[in-house]
Amino acid sequence: MSPTLLQFDFPYDGPFGAAMTAAFDGLARDIAAEDGLIWKIWTENAETRRAGGVYLFRDAEAAERYRAKHAARLAAFGVTGIVAHAFDVNGPLSAITRAPL
Amino acid sequence: MSPTLLQFDFPYDGPFGAAMTAAFDGLARDIAAEDGLIWKIWTENAETRRAGGVYLFRDAEAAERYRAKHAARLAAFGVTGIVAHAFDVNGPLSAITRAPL
Repeated sequence: MSPTLLQFDFPYDGPFGAAMTAAFDGLARDIAAEDGLIWKIWTENAETRRAGGVYLFRDAEAAERYRAKHAARLAAFGVTGIVAHAFDVNGPLSAITRAPL
Repeated sequence: MSPTLLQFDFPYDGPFGAAMTAAFDGLARDIAAEDGLIWKIWTENAETRRAGGVYLFRDAEAAERYRAKHAARLAAFGVTGIVAHAFDVNGPLSAITRAPL
């Protein structure tokens, strides 16, 4: 059982910044309780109109379960063009570069 | 000055796992000393034959400087099809989901 990194990225027209925080506070609290989630970093790019997140899950199964759930949730919001990639983490190399695993 | 997340992803035929660790130990020590780098997580996906990393930089300028440097280094290694995205981090939402910023 090794940690799995999951990355989501999709077209997003806003809101960004503080308004994004207000819009997704409830969703963030729901995601924080997700089974197997270690952490999520919320990403936004107002210039390229994209948003997403980088997640660390305790294992590949938890990452895949969330990937399917979140992709369906985004699709229900009308989001298309979703990019989602899962990766194994190389622990020793990440330790050298101070990764928070 | 707010942290910037940088994500690299590219086709990669290996080595993976412990052999990848051995191959890139020196590079990891060099990257650890990169100006403005807070941390890097090293990613690998033996199934889809991709590798890359997720980086947190102290600001957009440091991230862009490294993006150009690393893209040139990968190209010199013969890597093509490089995907590199920079994102702002939504701090308050990330705090709710325990992000290590």
